[in-house]
Amino acid sequence: MVVSLRLPSLSSLFLPSVSRRSPAVLPRHHHRILRTPVFAASFSAQTTVSETDDRVDTQKSNRVQDQAVTPRSKDFNAWYLDVIEQAELADYGPVRGTMVIRPYGYAIWEAIQDYLNVKFKETGHSNMYFPQFIPYSFIEKEASHVEGFSPELAVVTIGGGKELEEKLVVRPTSETIVNHMFTQWIHSYRDLPLMVNQWANVTRWEMRTKPFVRTLEFLWQEGHTAHATPEEAEKEAIQMIDVYTKFAYEQTAIPVIAGRKSKVETFAGAVKTYTIEAMMGDRKALQAGTSHNLGQNFSRAFGTQFTDESGLRQHVWQTSWAVSTRFVGGIIMTHGDDTGLMLPPKIAPIQVVIIPIWKKDDDRAVVLNAASSVKEALHAAGIKVKLDDSDQRTPGWKFNFWEMKVCGYP
Amino acid sequence: MVVSLRLPSLSSLFLPSVSRRSPAVLPRHHHRILRTPVFAASFSAQTTVSETDDRVDTQKSNRVQDQAVTPRSKDFNAWYLDVIEQAELADYGPVRGTMVIRPYGYAIWEAIQDYLNVKFKETGHSNMYFPQFIPYSFIEKEASHVEGFSPELAVVTIGGGKELEEKLVVRPTSETIVNHMFTQWIHSYRDLPLMVNQWANVTRWEMRTKPFVRTLEFLWQEGHTAHATPEEAEKEAIQMIDVYTKFAYEQTAIPVIAGRKSKVETFAGAVKTYTIEAMMGDRKALQAGTSHNLGQNFSRAFGTQFTDESGLRQHVWQTSWAVSTRFVGGIIMTHGDDTGLMLPPKIAPIQVVIIPIWKKDDDRAVVLNAASSVKEALHAAGIKVKLDDSDQRTPGWKFNFWEMKVCGYP
Repeated sequence: MVVSLRLPSLSSLFLPSVSRRSPAVLPRHHHRILRTPVFAASFSAQTTVSETDDRVDTQKSNRVQDQAVTPRSKDFNAWYLDVIEQAELADYGPVRGTMVIRPYGYAIWEAIQDYLNVKFKETGHSNMYFPQFIPYSFIEKEASHVEGFSPELAVVTIGGGKELEEKLVVRPTSETIVNHMFTQWIHSYRDLPLMVNQWANVTRWEMRTKPFVRTLEFLWQEGHTAHATPEEAEKEAIQMIDVYTKFAYEQTAIPVIAGRKSKVETFAGAVKTYTIEAMMGDRKALQAGTSHNLGQNFSRAFGTQFTDESGLRQHVWQTSWAVSTRFVGGIIMTHGDDTGLMLPPKIAPIQVVIIPIWKKDDDRAVVLNAASSVKEALHAAGIKVKLDDSDQRTPGWKFNFWEMKVCGYP
Repeated sequence: MVVSLRLPSLSSLFLPSVSRRSPAVLPRHHHRILRTPVFAASFSAQTTVSETDDRVDTQKSNRVQDQAVTPRSKDFNAWYLDVIEQAELADYGPVRGTMVIRPYGYAIWEAIQDYLNVKFKETGHSNMYFPQFIPYSFIEKEASHVEGFSPELAVVTIGGGKELEEKLVVRPTSETIVNHMFTQWIHSYRDLPLMVNQWANVTRWEMRTKPFVRTLEFLWQEGHTAHATPEEAEKEAIQMIDVYTKFAYEQTAIPVIAGRKSKVETFAGAVKTYTIEAMMGDRKALQAGTSHNLGQNFSRAFGTQFTDESGLRQHVWQTSWAVSTRFVGGIIMTHGDDTGLMLPPKIAPIQVVIIPIWKKDDDRAVVLNAASSVKEALHAAGIKVKLDDSDQRTPGWKFNFWEMKVCGYP
């Protein structure tokens, strides 16, 4: 009667008491993660880019929901797209390269947000919101920034039925508009450090896209900080890549490698780019989070200055750092197996599904009652549990559905 | 030593034990809200629009932070803009009509999100995310929708350096793209009701703007549901306006009037629009939330059909409903007074500020220790408390700053 989530067997991740308290819960054990930690020592531009072989707007397959996913071992890419479709994580938007994040996929993103949001606040950052329309001239102010982003911009040229005097860029990232505002808010050393974050959508006109991994519009958080010294900025950049690393290991069971990007891969406008990358099931690297020490590149371009304690005017030292919905793709590609999706329990929207079965209508109330008790017990133990008591589907259909979507069963 | 937040005296809102437990906390009492409940019986298009007399891009005044706000009683509009600037709630973005929501203003929005997000999930909705770029042709599919939104659209015509074949609209609202997707997900009555919500940014090219109240880009949640019967859709539309009403009363202490919009003010594409409106301090009405019964207008335009239990194909019945960052403006305009901002305690990011004062350096440790104890006691009692123990400012500066920003003191 109880279907349990197929969980990676990192026992430290799961509440140790669960299987003891609830004998009906028998998670299938998978040792794949523990067997494959063969990591690339460095991540070249090629490996980072090479997982984007497919376009989001690839013609949808005509697979029906009742069909199994392509085995991961047979065709990793077809498997990935199958899992996303059949587990109802995301769908293709009407505009090439855009993605609709469906409730089950979005719940994974919400779990990521919930964790990181707390960590960002604990480390002294406040949330806020910058507008997404940026005057075209802003992008042009920082030489390597304009070079890095120009080919990827979406541009608004018409507003309220009229041709605009200055074209507006839909933010690909917010360093330029952030500096425009910081320049108004930062006057003296007393205003530093200034440490903010925003949860937002960003747009990059990528030609090769893939759900979650690379899409025209995606969701992310972007942290932006300004400091009085280069040492402070460097410390901040490292602190945030550490937050990401810990998150990847402890919450998502993804053994990432933290390191510094090569010069050619450094963020457009940054002095140093730190990254966490992980090897996916197809042995390709995925960049899962970045933290940039921006030095004074943007503060010089925008004139973001402060008066220090001795009365001298200085340019601030800055950082920016981001994790996006790409992380959801990383979780899928790290933990999935031939049968479909497997989610790390701390991130899983549902950890256990209960499917009640009765033979005679007389048994219905008794079974439902027992199922509810199990649900309550699991819920009280902190397990995210779903009781699928809908009348519209048979237990067989439900088993197939939940296994395809997120679960196996003992 | 203790500065308390200036709170409206709706005692039911505040923890009754606070002033008893913490004799140092002496909230100033304001009875203005209780004195002014003279509500407009109906809200005409004129009154709803008339509070937008000012543009976000109004030249910034050259008031400095140490200057008091314009008294509310003297010039409501100047007062409103002063409060937003001096309490650091928001600032003007570089593009006309756009707004930067600063941390203190954003924290109010986060409090709104936290409450509503729970209520939406309790009433059976899941969060998800739809892309913001909508093919221009989608907008044109529903006659009154295109008529209502065409003058307000921001249009992307260039992507990746090239002129696009089909222009893309930056969403002013998502009914069209939602229906495009619903049509792919809804097949039979078993797929209904479909009840989702998204937290997102939207863009409307308004000519007359005002921070929070009306901006080119704003943040909101938009709920979208599809049902098998018109009765279910109507019930849902009313349920959600009820959620908003309860939120306005119980969390923000804004006595709203719930009602139905006149035909001319009904949402473009809806059959009925329910609204909550409240009278602001200048005796003008502000629309603070809407819930639309869309009938079959969009499902007919997009062909969103399902097979009912008897095997017949029918168009779904739909709703949509939204609350935006405008609500923050409503809170400011309802509760503020001549001296500045006053926030309802359930929404206030900070309820009490403690400013330690010592005469001799020897006293410093003792005072800070005592202040910390008070802070801990308040925190334990569930009060959102801030201890401003920074060395960079004098107590006098801090008193002025916090009074101007959010607090009065006894």
